[in-house]
Amino acid sequence: VVQHIREILGGGIEAFGLRDDAGVLALPGTGPAEGERSLIVSVDTVVEGVHVDPALCGPPDIGWKALMGALSDLAAVGADPLGALVALCVPAGSGSGELAVGVMEGVAEAAQTSGCAVVGGDVSSAAQVVVSVTVLGTVEGGGPPPVSRSGGQAGDVIMVTGPCGGSAAGLRTLRAGPGPRAAGRMDAAATCAARAYCRPVARLGEGTTARRAGAHAMIDVSDGLALDLHRLADASGAGFELARRAIPLGEGATLAEALQGGEDYELVVVADEAASRALAADLEASGLRRPVRIGMLVADPAVRTLDGDPLPRVGWQHRLA
Amino acid sequence: VVQHIREILGGGIEAFGLRDDAGVLALPGTGPAEGERSLIVSVDTVVEGVHVDPALCGPPDIGWKALMGALSDLAAVGADPLGALVALCVPAGSGSGELAVGVMEGVAEAAQTSGCAVVGGDVSSAAQVVVSVTVLGTVEGGGPPPVSRSGGQAGDVIMVTGPCGGSAAGLRTLRAGPGPRAAGRMDAAATCAARAYCRPVARLGEGTTARRAGAHAMIDVSDGLALDLHRLADASGAGFELARRAIPLGEGATLAEALQGGEDYELVVVADEAASRALAADLEASGLRRPVRIGMLVADPAVRTLDGDPLPRVGWQHRLA
Repeated sequence: VVQHIREILGGGIEAFGLRDDAGVLALPGTGPAEGERSLIVSVDTVVEGVHVDPALCGPPDIGWKALMGALSDLAAVGADPLGALVALCVPAGSGSGELAVGVMEGVAEAAQTSGCAVVGGDVSSAAQVVVSVTVLGTVEGGGPPPVSRSGGQAGDVIMVTGPCGGSAAGLRTLRAGPGPRAAGRMDAAATCAARAYCRPVARLGEGTTARRAGAHAMIDVSDGLALDLHRLADASGAGFELARRAIPLGEGATLAEALQGGEDYELVVVADEAASRALAADLEASGLRRPVRIGMLVADPAVRTLDGDPLPRVGWQHRLA
Repeated sequence: VVQHIREILGGGIEAFGLRDDAGVLALPGTGPAEGERSLIVSVDTVVEGVHVDPALCGPPDIGWKALMGALSDLAAVGADPLGALVALCVPAGSGSGELAVGVMEGVAEAAQTSGCAVVGGDVSSAAQVVVSVTVLGTVEGGGPPPVSRSGGQAGDVIMVTGPCGGSAAGLRTLRAGPGPRAAGRMDAAATCAARAYCRPVARLGEGTTARRAGAHAMIDVSDGLALDLHRLADASGAGFELARRAIPLGEGATLAEALQGGEDYELVVVADEAASRALAADLEASGLRRPVRIGMLVADPAVRTLDGDPLPRVGWQHRLA
C-alpha cells in the first residue's frame, strides 16, 4: 500500500517522506553563502488501542509518546527541533475536554524536555484518541548534511546509543501489574517499567553529535533493533554481523524484547572506525552516554547474522490489508 | 478547552498556532540581508462522519478536502505552499489498502492543482478515516509580512474573493440526491453541487496577491462568512456593517447557507480604499476573479450588522464538552 501511495504521489510530486521516516526540504532563501540550510519534516501518529493501550498509559503519556516518536525521526537524521504541530482527536461527549487537556499536558512536558516549541494544533472529535504530530527540524548549512539510512559501508562499525528492549519489558511488566493509575502502589521495578514504556526519550543530542562526527547512516529503534537494522542494511545495500553479548539490554528486558520490541528510540549509528571513536569522545564530552558497539556492516547484503546465525526480520510491522 | 490547552503550552512554549489558524516561524539562517523569511505552518484534520459524510464523498474527495482545508490557512495569510505532510488513518481489514490509496489519490490531485509537494506521510489504522494534513508555506523576505486577522481598521473595505454558500448548497443537494457514486446519472446541477462540496479550492493566488497589495487583515471562510467575519472583527477590535445584496451567493445557495455554511474557502480581505483598488486590478491582471465588496469595518466593536440588523454569530463550531 505504501509503495502504491508513493507511486501516486510520484507523478511530479516529491514524496521522500514516504520513502523514509523524515523528509528533507531545501529552504528557498537560504543562500549558498551561508551553506544551504535544510528543513527536516516528519509526521508520526499514535492511535489509542493500536499503538498504545489506554489501560496502561494515561492521557499525558499518550501525548508524550506521540511527540517523542515524531522527534525521534529528527534525531535519526541529526536535526535540531524547530517546532511541532499536534492534530488531536478525542471521543466527543462528557470528559472529552479533560481528555484533550490531559494529552496536551504530556505533549507540553515532552516539548519542554526536548526544547521543541509547539507551534500549531487542532482538536477534533473521533471514535478514539488519535494524536498526529508533525515535527520540523533544521540542519545548519556548511556542516554535514542530514544523515540517511543509506550511507552505510562495508567495514563500518554498528553502534547503538543505549539499551534496547526496555519499552517492551515495561509493557510486559505493566500488563502483569496494577497499571500506572495505581502509581502510589507501584514498586520501584514497576515504576521503572512504566517510565520506559510510557515516557521514552528521543535521542536528539546523540543524533546531532553523530551527524557532526561523520556518521555514515542512522536509524532510530522504533520497531525493534532487528527490523530497524535490517532496514538500514537494505537502504545501504549491505549486510551485518552482530555479537549477541554486545547488545545492551534495557531494564528487565530479554534479548528478544531488545531485538523485536521497538519504541526504545535509541539510535543505531553506523560509522567508520575514526568517526566511531570521535563520536564516543564527543558524546562523553557532552555528558551523554557512550555508544555501544554491537557489530559491523559487511559487503554481502545476504549476510544478516547474530553470532553467525541468520537474524530474522522481526519487529513491529504495521500492516494494512 | 482550546484556551486551557493554550495555557498549558504557554509555559515557555510558543503556541501561536493555537491562537490563530496558522503559525508563523522565523527561520534561523535567513539573514536580515535578504529580509527575514517566514515559515508558515498549519494543521487541519478531516474525520469521517464528523467533518465529511462518506456516503456523499468518495475517498479521493476526502483527501482533496483535507489538503485544501489546510492550504486555505496558508492562503489566508498570503503564503506560498512549500510542502504538506499527511497522517492518514483508515479502518483495518479488507479494503483498507484500497481506501488508503483512494484518499491519497485525492490528496495528490489537490497537491498538483495547488503546486504543493507532499513531503511526508504516515498510514495507521483506526476505527474511522482520519486525515490530518500539516502544510508548510513561506512568505518572502523584504515584502509585506504574513497577514493576520487582527490588522483591520475602521473605514476599511470588506471584500470576499468569490461566492459563498456553494459548499453548503452542494451538501444539501447531495443529501437529496443519489450521491456522487452514481455520478453517471447526476444532472448538471448535481454535478456542480458535488464539485462545490467535494472539491473546494484554496485561494492561494488571491491570498498572496492580497498580501502584496497591502491587505490589512484576512481570514478564510471555513466555518461560514458570518462566524469567520466575526472572528476577524474580534481580532481587529472592530465592528462591521454588511450589505445583504452585495454578498455573492454560490451556485444554488441561500443567504443563510452563505452566512453559516462554511468550507467555501473564499477569502475575506480587509483593506483601505487604495489597497482595495490595487487588489482588484492585480487580481484581474493575474486572470483571477475580481473581489466583491460586501461592507465596511467600523470603529465600534459592538456594531456587527447586516443591512442594519445585528448579524448573529452563526456557523460551524466544533465543540468539545
